[in-house]
Amino acid sequence: MAFTPTDYLPYDFANRRHIGPSPEEMAEMLETIGVDSLDQLIDETVPKSIRQETPLDFGKPKSERELMHAMRMTASKNKVLVSLIGQGYHGTVTPPAIQRNILENPAWYTAYTPYQPEISQGRLEALLNFQTMICDLTGLPVANASLLDESTACAEAMTMAQRVAKSKQKAFFVDRDCHPQNIAVIRTRAAPLGIEVIVGNPDKMEAGKVFGAVFQYPGTYGHVRDFSDHIAALHEHNAIGIVCADPLALTLLKEPGEMGADIAVGSAQRFGVPVGYGGPHAAYMACRDDYKRAMPGRIVGVSVDSHGNRAYRLSLQTREQHIRREKATSNVCTAQALLAVMASMYAVFHGPKGLKAIAQRIHRKTVRLAKGLEEAGFKVDPQAFFDTITVDVGPLQAAVLKSAVDEGINLRRVGERRVGITLDEATRPKNVESVWRAFGITRKDDDFAPDYRVPENLHRKSDYLTHPIFHMNRAETEMMRYMRRLADRDLALDRAMIPLGSCTMKLNAAAEMMPVSWREFARLHPFCPADQAEGYRELITDLSAKLCEITGYDDISMQPNSGAQGEYAGLLTIAAFHRANGEGHRNVCLIPTSAHGTNPASAQMVGWKVVAVKSGPTGDIDLEDFRAKAEKHSESLAGCMITYPSTHGVFEETVRDVCQIVHDHGGQVYIDGANLNAMVGLSRPGDIGGDVSHLNLHKTFCIPHGGGGPGMGPIGVKAHLVPFLPGHPQRGGAEGPVSAAPYGSASILPISWAYILLMGGEGLAQATRVAILNANYIAKRLEGAYDVLYRGRNDRVAHECILDTRPFADSAGVTVDDIAKRLIDNGFHAPTMSWPVAGTLMVEPTESETKAELDRFCDAMLAIREEIREIEEGRIDGENNPLKHAPHTMEDLVKDWDRPYSREQGCFPPGAFRVDKYWPPVNRVDNAYGDRHLICTCPPMEDYAEAAE
Amino acid sequence: MAFTPTDYLPYDFANRRHIGPSPEEMAEMLETIGVDSLDQLIDETVPKSIRQETPLDFGKPKSERELMHAMRMTASKNKVLVSLIGQGYHGTVTPPAIQRNILENPAWYTAYTPYQPEISQGRLEALLNFQTMICDLTGLPVANASLLDESTACAEAMTMAQRVAKSKQKAFFVDRDCHPQNIAVIRTRAAPLGIEVIVGNPDKMEAGKVFGAVFQYPGTYGHVRDFSDHIAALHEHNAIGIVCADPLALTLLKEPGEMGADIAVGSAQRFGVPVGYGGPHAAYMACRDDYKRAMPGRIVGVSVDSHGNRAYRLSLQTREQHIRREKATSNVCTAQALLAVMASMYAVFHGPKGLKAIAQRIHRKTVRLAKGLEEAGFKVDPQAFFDTITVDVGPLQAAVLKSAVDEGINLRRVGERRVGITLDEATRPKNVESVWRAFGITRKDDDFAPDYRVPENLHRKSDYLTHPIFHMNRAETEMMRYMRRLADRDLALDRAMIPLGSCTMKLNAAAEMMPVSWREFARLHPFCPADQAEGYRELITDLSAKLCEITGYDDISMQPNSGAQGEYAGLLTIAAFHRANGEGHRNVCLIPTSAHGTNPASAQMVGWKVVAVKSGPTGDIDLEDFRAKAEKHSESLAGCMITYPSTHGVFEETVRDVCQIVHDHGGQVYIDGANLNAMVGLSRPGDIGGDVSHLNLHKTFCIPHGGGGPGMGPIGVKAHLVPFLPGHPQRGGAEGPVSAAPYGSASILPISWAYILLMGGEGLAQATRVAILNANYIAKRLEGAYDVLYRGRNDRVAHECILDTRPFADSAGVTVDDIAKRLIDNGFHAPTMSWPVAGTLMVEPTESETKAELDRFCDAMLAIREEIREIEEGRIDGENNPLKHAPHTMEDLVKDWDRPYSREQGCFPPGAFRVDKYWPPVNRVDNAYGDRHLICTCPPMEDYAEAAE
Repeated sequence: MAFTPTDYLPYDFANRRHIGPSPEEMAEMLETIGVDSLDQLIDETVPKSIRQETPLDFGKPKSERELMHAMRMTASKNKVLVSLIGQGYHGTVTPPAIQRNILENPAWYTAYTPYQPEISQGRLEALLNFQTMICDLTGLPVANASLLDESTACAEAMTMAQRVAKSKQKAFFVDRDCHPQNIAVIRTRAAPLGIEVIVGNPDKMEAGKVFGAVFQYPGTYGHVRDFSDHIAALHEHNAIGIVCADPLALTLLKEPGEMGADIAVGSAQRFGVPVGYGGPHAAYMACRDDYKRAMPGRIVGVSVDSHGNRAYRLSLQTREQHIRREKATSNVCTAQALLAVMASMYAVFHGPKGLKAIAQRIHRKTVRLAKGLEEAGFKVDPQAFFDTITVDVGPLQAAVLKSAVDEGINLRRVGERRVGITLDEATRPKNVESVWRAFGITRKDDDFAPDYRVPENLHRKSDYLTHPIFHMNRAETEMMRYMRRLADRDLALDRAMIPLGSCTMKLNAAAEMMPVSWREFARLHPFCPADQAEGYRELITDLSAKLCEITGYDDISMQPNSGAQGEYAGLLTIAAFHRANGEGHRNVCLIPTSAHGTNPASAQMVGWKVVAVKSGPTGDIDLEDFRAKAEKHSESLAGCMITYPSTHGVFEETVRDVCQIVHDHGGQVYIDGANLNAMVGLSRPGDIGGDVSHLNLHKTFCIPHGGGGPGMGPIGVKAHLVPFLPGHPQRGGAEGPVSAAPYGSASILPISWAYILLMGGEGLAQATRVAILNANYIAKRLEGAYDVLYRGRNDRVAHECILDTRPFADSAGVTVDDIAKRLIDNGFHAPTMSWPVAGTLMVEPTESETKAELDRFCDAMLAIREEIREIEEGRIDGENNPLKHAPHTMEDLVKDWDRPYSREQGCFPPGAFRVDKYWPPVNRVDNAYGDRHLICTCPPMEDYAEAAE
Repeated sequence: MAFTPTDYLPYDFANRRHIGPSPEEMAEMLETIGVDSLDQLIDETVPKSIRQETPLDFGKPKSERELMHAMRMTASKNKVLVSLIGQGYHGTVTPPAIQRNILENPAWYTAYTPYQPEISQGRLEALLNFQTMICDLTGLPVANASLLDESTACAEAMTMAQRVAKSKQKAFFVDRDCHPQNIAVIRTRAAPLGIEVIVGNPDKMEAGKVFGAVFQYPGTYGHVRDFSDHIAALHEHNAIGIVCADPLALTLLKEPGEMGADIAVGSAQRFGVPVGYGGPHAAYMACRDDYKRAMPGRIVGVSVDSHGNRAYRLSLQTREQHIRREKATSNVCTAQALLAVMASMYAVFHGPKGLKAIAQRIHRKTVRLAKGLEEAGFKVDPQAFFDTITVDVGPLQAAVLKSAVDEGINLRRVGERRVGITLDEATRPKNVESVWRAFGITRKDDDFAPDYRVPENLHRKSDYLTHPIFHMNRAETEMMRYMRRLADRDLALDRAMIPLGSCTMKLNAAAEMMPVSWREFARLHPFCPADQAEGYRELITDLSAKLCEITGYDDISMQPNSGAQGEYAGLLTIAAFHRANGEGHRNVCLIPTSAHGTNPASAQMVGWKVVAVKSGPTGDIDLEDFRAKAEKHSESLAGCMITYPSTHGVFEETVRDVCQIVHDHGGQVYIDGANLNAMVGLSRPGDIGGDVSHLNLHKTFCIPHGGGGPGMGPIGVKAHLVPFLPGHPQRGGAEGPVSAAPYGSASILPISWAYILLMGGEGLAQATRVAILNANYIAKRLEGAYDVLYRGRNDRVAHECILDTRPFADSAGVTVDDIAKRLIDNGFHAPTMSWPVAGTLMVEPTESETKAELDRFCDAMLAIREEIREIEEGRIDGENNPLKHAPHTMEDLVKDWDRPYSREQGCFPPGAFRVDKYWPPVNRVDNAYGDRHLICTCPPMEDYAEAAE
């Protein structure tokens, strides 16, 4: 008996580790739903017309161990040289404590965007530290909590400048010393908006002819210049001055605010975030106080909770899920929260003194490097610099670059005759010596007397990072505990399901995450010679091929760093296609009213007109309205943007018709990939009529949400669109880039690749089936208590369902907010609130959740329904009840209790763990108060002293 | 101004990251103490007579980044081949989720031994899972929570057998098929105890001539045999049968309990714990119920808390700190908690079905391997096996071994003509093919029909791992949350100071920990060819040299896996020295009454007589008594064991005299290294008279405590003792080994090496100074509230101080336990309780704690003193007060409150964090109840169902 061979596969990642419900659990769930098999459920749910014919087949899936082996083999094909290329990407030292306790800690990386502030106080504090740091360094009073990368930050600054400038000029000036990728992304962004981009020497700028200008500081070739006069000139003409600044340089150099800048942008990468072949890193934006409401991105603010205690929250939230289509100015949604947290912790770790010391060391090393070159007779430019110089080597450029590579160093090719060198905190004396050797110089990097090459007028005069948080004791013990305390305040996937409709919070498996920390992936400069990045090439090629197979597209661009950026890139691709066909006039985009707010925002960014299409009573696209609008705009139809399955969580049967209509009228079909988790392995957007889709790798393909970023939104396109995909100044291509780096946030691509290799084709399809199973199980279990707003064929939902909570507003005065906050007491992050339908909850459990967790959630929701009933039936007061007081905190417990329900009822409703209960650190946060009293930097010292009591 | 070069060193690990107090804080602390400088404090504290003359100098300390580079260089010198050597060490697959969430998670690895059960429920549950798993697999009802390694477990089983056997024989039988290191360690242990070891064929064993016997299962050469008859024969003669079994094999093979075994031991290494060049891993021991009170090591048991809720705790605690010298039978103190937790999680991850499938796969692979060899004409032995075979290759042994290495495979050299091969779960089909090729066979590892080579009578018939914990849903999401929940129940260094006297809970820096996970350190077999372990050699050589420099000794043995084992090894070394000098009769050991209980226990283990020496009224050794006893036993004086600074936390001025006396009488001086954290860089035991010391690398040199292990207790010796250090069958040496592996727990040595490289000589000395500063600061701040029991010169304490809490028993009925539990409410782990003086608290803050944390602790202690005063002054009831009800839990808060103090007072006393408060999951645990109702496996299912409600 003992030797009866078992067919149990202990290393089956898909069915053993990734997919939540066990076979036994699935059987019970299918019985509850009332079907005989998973296949039957899928057949009932997913229309036959859209099913893919050939099953996904990627060969035998890998075990976790095989994956690690394969990853190591691929990683080893990346060669880690010392890159002194600069151009916005720098070597940096990630403090090991930050690496281990944040980057590698699921409590941080599995968290969701802090829309629910009560369960997000930890990361909100860390992000507030980030904002404070940026405000201090730039000398501007308001900063946001990060943008995607420096280049898009420049483009965002440009459009923001256009919004706020009183000047009515249509041109935008760009310092020719901006990094090439910044200039390129600005050009891409400007073109469809009709903005003329003037690239030139700032000294020759005609301030009266532009609505704004951006200056790079230090310049891409190393120059440090005072832009005060240029900005003054801009201001005289009601134009906006933008400085794109290296925040580390700002510890020594006169800050943008002091120059009069209206907006500052830049990258916080070198604050401890590995270059990672281009990303992800946190870009920043800061601005003058009067422009804060025009600033894109998330802003963390300070408010109070219902007890009057300080609480953090996202301010001015209208900019996101709630982007109103008619007012959309930016489609920014994803931020770089995890990386902003790392950068802010780096500043906390080092403090102003440490950062300054680091900057000074870099500068001194650069001075020594320059001296060595000068003494050997080389012409070094500029004379005033921070960390970057260029050397004129005449016809020997190639020889010097090669000689440097032989020494293990990458330098930058500048023009035809020059070589650029940028030092950083990771540059060792022996690296400097290697550079010299590459120039034929043999000398030791003796630490000769410091000599500064920054002119007196550019010395920074003001203090920075004066807040106590940047002066806390820097012992690792204390730092580790600070990071732990912040982490513990938040509720992430490592403690409970986060059932966010449209956001697919699935398992981010440890095996998928581990390679991200490897130096072979983390330490490559995005512009290093291609032969040093063979591992990345292999990874990107294979991942692209597999994503094409999954989606039915012919090629993929990895450039977009978020879903919204994917949309934008996709529409640009379509627009370029139309132009190439001589149909550049096509500029109408049909978008159903149920679309995600980023859809119309993206369409506006490419200069298109949005025509809204009605939904029918079932929530589906109104096919007649769609046809009518397509016909009406036939001549100018650029395309449509649809989501599949719909944002209502339904597999619409008419999707092929919709696509056909668009194609018949000469348009292209953009299928939003937000809901791809309901399709992988079952249906391919490329087969049902899509020409382009973006894929949220951070939703469907396991990149963790990181508390609000990073993200990756690559786009897949059909063959006819391939020539029009985004290009990049460093990698070629006919079109302009949408991101700073050629492959977006390349260093997190191993996560998605790992996921696919671990799952195999059938595993991926099974994950989709179980995602649908889990959603239908919840819908079934909540039947009678909550109405599911939209259903598809056979009354099934896809991978998510919308619970209608609007009736309770009338019946009991209970809002969707009350339910969301009460769910915190039950131990859950709320589902997506009020989207796509105000007053509802959209629940997406994903395939990674077990039946036990789904049941815990359903029990919680049913208990809440009973609590509502108590109000409806007058058994408890409408204002003084567990829902209105939710979430409950320890403060409630310790205080006197004069409520008509017990402490037990308040704090331990069904679903809540007993000893392992999650306690929110604050009571319900007052959003209105926070927006009225906008504070977006760390509160003053006295407040801290008080809080410590 | 901006360019005034700063002398701030941002990468100074010692003063920036490791040492807690900042320079400003130190200044304030020195003022409080009343000295002008740190040097003055040290001069007042550490006697000039013992100060070292030359400062430690290890050159420039490394930054964290430089360290990582150096570590990588060293690691790269280790060659990771596929080791099929077996012999107790096996390839295994550590589930990535376990690696990341336990091995690499400070919440697990920085925890202390669970002596305070209320703050240790998480790891106690994990260890209870371990015990349950061992009981199930071995078929015996009681198991402990791990031992150091399989070999010492064998030795412990032998001495335990001698204790419990009714047979009065003096001999012990050892199966000749035991692993060579097991036989060797048994011999080492037996010799001084006068036990005769008979190694032979079990079939020829004379059961009447022994008190016990141990059998290896499967045998070291692969044989699987049923020992039922042998054990029955032993029982007939009142002797004890011990089976040393591979727990993975037990998923398929008849279990030791079924064979009638009284005791089972073995290693749980292959349950997901990397081989790590020999360790650390968890060994196990299980036994019949009637012998449980004779079992060494820690046993986790189930009890109740003061509310009657289930709570875990260490049972029968007398075996540890409380080892009573006259009854000591084992000196076991450290366990392998972290590794036992990993192994138990591996079992939870895989469950019985998964483990069985893994074992079957290994067996089938081995069968295929054997068939391939047999078909090619090789003679394979044995015919019945699990995972190990040997092949007779005649004179070609060396050629086959080399040919295998060329294929990337290490095989085992067996005798002169044979080659041993052991497969494991990590063996790939291509590895099997490589082995064949090494034998000149070219064939594919086609998965031919399974064929089992285990005889019917050895098939396991019984179920195992039937408890629900081993049947929970195995999705990683669920597993991750389980590990997180357990971690959150515990209070470790990542949340608060753990001021444990004599245990030195200092920072375990992330940079020090990271290399432990690297495959170059984790995947080396301890018996691999030396040229594959050049990195380890380099590390061990340099670490040894530096430790010699620090201690003033001439050589170091890395073999002992714990402090107590170091003591034992040190005394063995002295004994061997005496024997070599023809003075083998010397067997008297002077030990002060204040010594750690392990000291006399270790002395007894080497067969010595312990003569206790009195302490004077100041707590110092009574020099006159010492001299008198030395004179009295002059002829037979083997040596003395002293601790320096003393266990009373005092630098005794007379230490040189004490050593001189011993030397004058021909004895050797053992200086216990437990308090080395007060000496490093200031004083060297080898200079003040020590001949041998052990060093607790897990105290002074940053190896984390792991919740109760691993540890490392290498010994340093003077030149004349070097020839007598422990040897090892695989590595040579005249003396026998004390551990299974030649370098003990080699894979954690990078931690201590990293620490020394990061700190540099001056950094280490500064750490010592600050450790002394921190202790004196606490002593000063608590002055007036608590009496410090012992002080040295100028009324200073060393690096720890004993607070006398005995008076409160009389004045207020408050015990040291009450204070310890109340400290949990204040957010602290209690100091060492009732050791070395009953009814006191010994506080050791270490240098890693900041002034803020010390103040938080002092505030807590002062507040407790005030609470005691309230009782003393009759202002609050003697039984109904915060001290007696401590610790307070959420259960207290949620329940009705009828106490004479407020919830606020109960739960948020000074020191407690507000939003970040640590809540113990249970109220005070009833120790007596637990010992009366001893339950040492997971409680039955119904209990769980209940708890889930």
